Amino acid sequence: MHKITEIGMEHDVLHENHKLAHENYHMLEHHNIVSIDFMGSIGSGKTAMIIKLAEILRGKGKKVAAIAGDVTGEDDFKRMKESGITAINCNTGHECHLDAHMIRNTLKKIDLDGTDVLFIENVGNLVCPADFPLGTEKRVVVISVTEGDDMVRKHPDIFHKADVAIVNKTDIAEYVDVDVNVILDDYKKLTGGNKKMIECSVKTGKGLDDVIKALGL
Amino acid sequence: MHKITEIGMEHDVLHENHKLAHENYHMLEHHNIVSIDFMGSIGSGKTAMIIKLAEILRGKGKKVAAIAGDVTGEDDFKRMKESGITAINCNTGHECHLDAHMIRNTLKKIDLDGTDVLFIENVGNLVCPADFPLGTEKRVVVISVTEGDDMVRKHPDIFHKADVAIVNKTDIAEYVDVDVNVILDDYKKLTGGNKKMIECSVKTGKGLDDVIKALGL
Repeated sequence: MHKITEIGMEHDVLHENHKLAHENYHMLEHHNIVSIDFMGSIGSGKTAMIIKLAEILRGKGKKVAAIAGDVTGEDDFKRMKESGITAINCNTGHECHLDAHMIRNTLKKIDLDGTDVLFIENVGNLVCPADFPLGTEKRVVVISVTEGDDMVRKHPDIFHKADVAIVNKTDIAEYVDVDVNVILDDYKKLTGGNKKMIECSVKTGKGLDDVIKALGL
Repeated sequence: MHKITEIGMEHDVLHENHKLAHENYHMLEHHNIVSIDFMGSIGSGKTAMIIKLAEILRGKGKKVAAIAGDVTGEDDFKRMKESGITAINCNTGHECHLDAHMIRNTLKKIDLDGTDVLFIENVGNLVCPADFPLGTEKRVVVISVTEGDDMVRKHPDIFHKADVAIVNKTDIAEYVDVDVNVILDDYKKLTGGNKKMIECSVKTGKGLDDVIKALGL
């Protein structure tokens, strides 16, 4: 997080966010919406995963909406929309993460009674989104093998805070000289051996069933 | 950047950073050190690039030092050290970017008279480091083809602010279905057609001569 020199300021920002996240949570719960916050770095495959999961869920008769969070632009939003998802774009302007206030405003644009599942794609960043829960039922962190085998060791906070952790693009691990087992072991150690990171390849379809199960969808 | 509700606070933080960056700049200039800030997302290959460039520069008789910036841990620092670079670790604790104050403190640990080139590896993030110049002579942004072809469109600010832009891992573009020309064209458009992004593969060595030249090393 950015250095905020006045004592108490950082705390106030986080406290305010938690309060609004709590309100979002109850609003989503009231409408029986299963909501998921997808966190993860740039290029980890969050958009492709949301598109693929939405496709599977539509096949089961579920109504899926998504919020595409980005600093600027409409790339992810357009990809989601073209795939058939009811999508809303949410540009943060300058912020490196979504926050509960942005989500509260964006929820006003969504037909909540006509939605079963809401996917929120956070800004590509493995640091700050961890501090700003949005009020979703679950928080997911998606990493890609292309980021190297040290992602868990370098960003323990987000892996601690996420309910579900996914390592994506395992199909190209050999081309980037990454041993997926190192990542899986780091996560296991970090979470005390109780939680297992899901191995996944959105491209080949590997692990998507496990993701659906872990998210309770 | 994080939402800072009190008016003027964001400005103060940035203003203070610019002042310290200015001091760092003059300190490095006084010691005849060529200094480079490597910005870029997680897994873009910043560490590998610094190690490779340092190897080439050592071959030319230059004394290279590096600062490894990370939220936590010593992974990049250790890789640099093992490769023979005089490296200093700089953990930000919770910040998603280095700032000029951190660098000023870290410079105290470096033998400036015994250094010709200083590489600073920023925290993996394509948003916030852009706002916090460190006082280096040049700022570089490194992206990887694995991040997708929309990186320039999604993060115009950092590409505007960097003196040199590099797209890395072009050797595996075909495995991640990315057309490098889309990235190159976006950068050309963004910078008014005057600047060219360097195509590079640290793994194969492609483009490293162009990087050395662009950085004036």
